[in-house]
Amino acid sequence: MSGGLRVWQDMEKERETLQAWKERVGQELDRVMAFWMEHSHDQEHGGFFTCLGRDGRVYDDLKYVWLQGRQVWMYCHLYRKFERFRRPELLESAKAGGEFLLRSARVAPPGKKCAFVLTRDGRPVKVQRTIFSECFYTMAMNELWRVTGEAHYQIEAVEMMDQIVHWVREDPSGLGRPQLPGAPASEPMAVPMMLLNLVEQLGESDEELAGKYAELGDWCAQRILQHVQRDGQAVLENVSEDGEELPGCLGRHQNPGHALEAGWFLLRHAIQKGDPELRAYVVDKFLLLPFRSGWDPDHGGLFYFQDADGLCPTQLEWAMKLWWPHSEAMIAFLMGYSDSGDPALLHLFYQVAEYTFRQFRDPEYGEWFGYLNREGRVVLTIKGGPFKGEWGTGRGRRGSGHSAAPDPPNSPSRLSPQAASTCRGVSPCARRCLAPY
Amino acid sequence: MSGGLRVWQDMEKERETLQAWKERVGQELDRVMAFWMEHSHDQEHGGFFTCLGRDGRVYDDLKYVWLQGRQVWMYCHLYRKFERFRRPELLESAKAGGEFLLRSARVAPPGKKCAFVLTRDGRPVKVQRTIFSECFYTMAMNELWRVTGEAHYQIEAVEMMDQIVHWVREDPSGLGRPQLPGAPASEPMAVPMMLLNLVEQLGESDEELAGKYAELGDWCAQRILQHVQRDGQAVLENVSEDGEELPGCLGRHQNPGHALEAGWFLLRHAIQKGDPELRAYVVDKFLLLPFRSGWDPDHGGLFYFQDADGLCPTQLEWAMKLWWPHSEAMIAFLMGYSDSGDPALLHLFYQVAEYTFRQFRDPEYGEWFGYLNREGRVVLTIKGGPFKGEWGTGRGRRGSGHSAAPDPPNSPSRLSPQAASTCRGVSPCARRCLAPY
Repeated sequence: MSGGLRVWQDMEKERETLQAWKERVGQELDRVMAFWMEHSHDQEHGGFFTCLGRDGRVYDDLKYVWLQGRQVWMYCHLYRKFERFRRPELLESAKAGGEFLLRSARVAPPGKKCAFVLTRDGRPVKVQRTIFSECFYTMAMNELWRVTGEAHYQIEAVEMMDQIVHWVREDPSGLGRPQLPGAPASEPMAVPMMLLNLVEQLGESDEELAGKYAELGDWCAQRILQHVQRDGQAVLENVSEDGEELPGCLGRHQNPGHALEAGWFLLRHAIQKGDPELRAYVVDKFLLLPFRSGWDPDHGGLFYFQDADGLCPTQLEWAMKLWWPHSEAMIAFLMGYSDSGDPALLHLFYQVAEYTFRQFRDPEYGEWFGYLNREGRVVLTIKGGPFKGEWGTGRGRRGSGHSAAPDPPNSPSRLSPQAASTCRGVSPCARRCLAPY
Repeated sequence: MSGGLRVWQDMEKERETLQAWKERVGQELDRVMAFWMEHSHDQEHGGFFTCLGRDGRVYDDLKYVWLQGRQVWMYCHLYRKFERFRRPELLESAKAGGEFLLRSARVAPPGKKCAFVLTRDGRPVKVQRTIFSECFYTMAMNELWRVTGEAHYQIEAVEMMDQIVHWVREDPSGLGRPQLPGAPASEPMAVPMMLLNLVEQLGESDEELAGKYAELGDWCAQRILQHVQRDGQAVLENVSEDGEELPGCLGRHQNPGHALEAGWFLLRHAIQKGDPELRAYVVDKFLLLPFRSGWDPDHGGLFYFQDADGLCPTQLEWAMKLWWPHSEAMIAFLMGYSDSGDPALLHLFYQVAEYTFRQFRDPEYGEWFGYLNREGRVVLTIKGGPFKGEWGTGRGRRGSGHSAAPDPPNSPSRLSPQAASTCRGVSPCARRCLAPY
């Protein structure tokens, strides 16, 4: 067999594999959307039930604001980007969710601070002293404006964005966190990550806002890059404000799924900036490095948490396998491959996708399980909960589905920045809130 | 073989089994104390390192106030109650720990609110909006007074106790929790449990304080009993302030280890009150009921969390096996047996003790592992962390050790209220604090 023929056959095989994944991911997205449309809509108050059991039954009617905002965003985004999701019931549910948020999310209007969780009818139950509810609120409002053209959604999005930026860069006192003399001024990577994502969200096809937030985007990227520590050998979740490693468990804490998620945010940013050096660095430090250290050599799957010194983490769930780091990894590797054409990245996508579809998918009732033990057994049978909604699974499949199709290895038709930007979003960060005490 | 001979032989065998457990527990207590004395003392600042790896190495020098208070209490208590622990180095370390707390625990003296975690040198890192740091502080101070006779410790204990009671029964605003319109006025069982335990602590051999807090003790018992719901078929962790079941996951939440712990607090209270009806009720509802629903029929061990409707809990660690519920169960069953002479309770003690010693004990480096997966495999190799210190293991073994000896079935020498009261303490409640966001 000639060398040319073998190369041609290899490319053909790769093309078929990618095509098969594209179809699989597309079917899965339809299946997931059907699950949420059937079970999660609150026809009485608007918004979504997200505490759904294995078969979709509502086991709690609390409304977690992160998940409300994400579901509104996802419905609008699918409506806007995919012909087959341009269905009136999707738009109506998204608008009802958006109106629920407008009416109820803020704890003490006109103050901007949003609740973390609301009762079914919209009364605040708990407030986090962070920016994340507000970030998901902003994403929902901006995407609602994009599909409806109604200006009040965009006004709400931009005002909230400006408030968030004020809290992060100027004065955090409005968040209500006490300043304690023993608490180091630490930066969780989630903060610049979320902000970078919002910059991308608001700036899409909007020159004015893209210009307004350009400096902020660069600042976010620079802050995320500060989390590469130890001579480039580790991505740490928390660093000091001037980019130094912090002492103790806080400083050594690693979250491979978060690093991979930051990776594709940064990659998208680097592509848009046309910065090939940054692109190569991000693939190396935020895709390959966390994958190598975070992939369980014994049972497959990504660990939830790790310690940079290889010590035992103190989080009880550190060795569990959660759905969302795997969704983030799939997006990251596919985007990395689409950008670079490096088949090693495509093969990592296959490795993660095969594990993910085999372990998390529920063939019986639809949707995915979210929480497996280290060995891969399902520990929680819920399909949605305080931190798991339609988002993580839907985003993973949408992101992958969108970019898997047109990119055989070494093809010139790599994922364009425009296409890549549809893989937007931020991690569900499946952290749980404290029990009542 | 005559019936009389068989009964005698059975009793003899039981006596030998109990004696063997007594020796095993005593040896284990010595081994655990050796581990903490070797690895945990901070000679420079006083207090204790509690973040200890499998071999005792310090992996973080933060000082969690719950664990500081507990270790001071435990050292003093062993010093006071057991001849072989009446060693100067134990008392010196306890005093250094007490002085560290006096100097550093309160966030803004003269205000009473204590930090949840401090830096090694005593600067506050995090504050919980609950009463628990203050409760462990009170226990430490009272026990220090009992061994040293130094009045300032007791003044501190009583002042803090009065502040806690004020927060719980009169005005919680000093704890800093916002009142939100959607948050139900719920009572976690931990609050009356902790208070009942403090009533026992302060009232021991102290007629004046026992009298002062008698009504409070009855109130606590009544509040704990309100957590028996569903026609006596379930102990629920959270109920409304007037004792009704709450909606959703919060209302259905169960913690079998907590119920068993509340059981032995209530049993001790009922014994002291001379209330045989309450004693029988407590054994039925707080010992047997949680054990029956909470014991894993497939792999043994107590589940960490459950849902009263048998739904899947939302906590990622719900199916894990933690050391402390097993310590509490051992104390509860032994106390129940000592009080009632019912051999069924003794056999439940054996069942739990056999699982516990087989699964949690580390024969290589000493001390116990704290966190196993459902199947019993060690997930966290740490010996101490933010919620696991010397206390849970030490208390379980001390409590069991103290009462295992003198109580063959149907023996008149049942555990006296005085002896039972040495099994004092409260659950380590291995809840983790939120990650930085």
